[in-house]
This record gives sequence, structure tokens and C-alpha cells, in this order.
Amino acid sequence: MDELLPEPEPLKTLIDALRRLPGVGVRSARRMAYHLLQHDLSGADQLSRALANAVQGLRHCARCNGFSEEEICATCANPKRDPSVLCVVETPADQNMIESSHGYRGLYYVLMGRLAPLEGIGPNELQFDRVIGRATDGQVQEVILATNFTAEGETTAHYLSELLQSQGLKVTRLARGVPAGSELEYVDAGTIAWALMERRST
Amino acid sequence: MDELLPEPEPLKTLIDALRRLPGVGVRSARRMAYHLLQHDLSGADQLSRALANAVQGLRHCARCNGFSEEEICATCANPKRDPSVLCVVETPADQNMIESSHGYRGLYYVLMGRLAPLEGIGPNELQFDRVIGRATDGQVQEVILATNFTAEGETTAHYLSELLQSQGLKVTRLARGVPAGSELEYVDAGTIAWALMERRST
Ligand SMILES: [Zn+2]
Ligand SMILES: [Zn+2]
Repeated sequence: MDELLPEPEPLKTLIDALRRLPGVGVRSARRMAYHLLQHDLSGADQLSRALANAVQGLRHCARCNGFSEEEICATCANPKRDPSVLCVVETPADQNMIESSHGYRGLYYVLMGRLAPLEGIGPNELQFDRVIGRATDGQVQEVILATNFTAEGETTAHYLSELLQSQGLKVTRLARGVPAGSELEYVDAGTIAWALMERRST
Repeated sequence: MDELLPEPEPLKTLIDALRRLPGVGVRSARRMAYHLLQHDLSGADQLSRALANAVQGLRHCARCNGFSEEEICATCANPKRDPSVLCVVETPADQNMIESSHGYRGLYYVLMGRLAPLEGIGPNELQFDRVIGRATDGQVQEVILATNFTAEGETTAHYLSELLQSQGLKVTRLARGVPAGSELEYVDAGTIAWALMERRST
């Protein structure tokens, strides 16, 4: 769109900042900016503070790599969780889905991504050394690879499986109850519970 | 989605705040939050500041009602614009589209909405008294109604037309070169230029 009107600088800056959100183009960003400024100033204020607080207040849990306010997150610090099983997921959303299946009482490691060589995301970027370090703490007996059943998720699982098995760990993968090509986040909890039960050695 | 994991408070708050953006559901909000925190901390920071600055730095231009940093915006203050013609639009995006047609050198009034009785938006909510006050400044000779060619936009134009004509003003409407049922923002600039040229008395 032509920008012929001298748009006020704070508005331009806001539209540019909103465009950095995933899936938001210039038109959506403009609509969001107008909406906030015209109809939801308190929403704009709330979002501004929430972003600042999240940036300042969140870090990666030293054990599972998920988002946390503390050095160690509540899940990792929970003494009722079974420390002998470690489930490796791509994202916190996947971790949430597995929790919602009520089929798992062990601990987690969140990769915060998956291998994607074309995007320059390799084992170093995902800090695979940290995964190995976590899995070889002496307590973990089994690592369940719960990366997505996409090409990239399968590659990630395969790669991790070799690394972990060479450390003498038992490595399993969620059973293929999860429809191939789909992402965990969009699968119903029952299917996930079943896939957890049917997990097999890799 | 079930919320079984004890998600850190700042993350929850951020996801809730993102959901207030138009067109953003819980899944998109979560994806946006993860993206910002994992891959674009500087983007999160930038958005936070941009929101705060926009909320604090922007107000409505006293003349055209558009967003402005100053009491009077740059367009209204531009001595090269023709003060005898006033174009009434629904949103700043519509104003931008009309500017990009290069077919207009007069001034604007931005309604920041349209009549929508079912949503409780009537003449009072849109401050029609301000439109009338602006149009009867003694300089304006003609008011061009450039509300959208939707049912609500047409109703708004009809209502404003009666009010303005009762003040003895010449009132015109963009020619129906704009395809009926469509929104100005999504029409090409050439069509808009043509519709401006062919504008007719109401
Ligand atoms: Zn943790
Ligand atoms: Zn103005």
C-alpha cells in the first residue's frame, strides 16, 4: 500500500512492531494498531506491560529448557514426577498436549525447535549437548522421543536416538498412533495417551 | 486446550494480552508468545515500547479526528490542501487509499467507525456533532461522503447526508465505480480516482 499520508511516527512504529509477530502482514498489523488505539487502549497498555514482564521475567529452566520464572521450573522441581523417564518435545505447546493426556508422570526436555538444516538449525543451534547432559544425569533410565511426526521431527528423533543410545540409554518413540504428517499440538488427548502406552524401542 | 502444566505467570499474562488483538485466538497467541520469547526478544521489546509510545503519544486531531501526535495533524495543517472540500471516511486506512489515488487535494474527516446499531454504535458514539461542527466552519463548501459501500457504510452516508444538507452544504458521494458490497481499503487506486471524478450530489 502506498504511504502517502504523513502517518504519525508512533503509529508507524507500532505497525512495524506488530508485523514482527508470526503470521501478521502489514494489513493485519494496521488493523490491530487501529483497533488498540481506537477501541482498546487498556489492551494496548496490558500487552505492552506483559511483553516487558515476559522479556525480563522469563528464562529457560536449567533442567528442561522450558520457559520459567525460576532457575528450575515447577515441573522439574515437582518431587511427585518420576525422574527415571525423560520425554523430549519440540515446544512447550507439545509438552502441554502430553500433560493433557494424563498418560505421563515423568519429566521433560523442551528442544524449543527441531532440526531444520535449510533454516540453519542444526544440533548446535538446538544445543544437543544440553539434552545429552540432562539425559545422562544418572537418574534417567529411558528417554521418550516425542518430537512431531513430520519429516523434520522424525529427523530430529532419529539424530537424538543415535546420540542417546551411544550413551547406553533406553530410547523410545511415541507409538505411531499419532497420524503421520501431523503435529502433536493438533492431536486429541486420547490418541496421545494411546501412543504413550504403545511406545516402542527405537 | 487443557492448562495442566503450571505455565509461568508472565507467559500466561502475555498470551492473554495477545488474545486481545483482533483475529487472534488462544493458539495464535501462544504461537506468537513462544516465537517472541524464543526467537525475537528484541521484537518483543520493540513492540512493548511501540505500544507504550503510541498510547502515550497519539491523540485524535482536533480537526479531522485522525491519529496525530499534535493537536492538529500534518494533513490538516498543510496550507496546500483545499479547505473548501471535506472528505468523510470511516478509517485512516480508507483515508490512505484515497490519498494513494492522487485524485484528491481537499481535507478529511475520519469517523473512526460507522453506524452499527446492533453493536450499539449510533450518531452519539461517532460524535456526529463534531462532523457537523467541522463541516460548518465557513470554509467547507462541499462534503464528499466516502464511507464504505457496505450496508452500514451506506446507512452512515445517508444519515450524514441529511444532517449536512440541512446545514445548507453541498453533499456528494463517491461515484458507484466502487463495486457494491466492497470495502475501500481493498479497491485499486485507479477505480477510486475514477469514482472521485464521477462523484455526484446526493
Ligand atoms: Zn524445567
Ligand atoms: Zn487532522
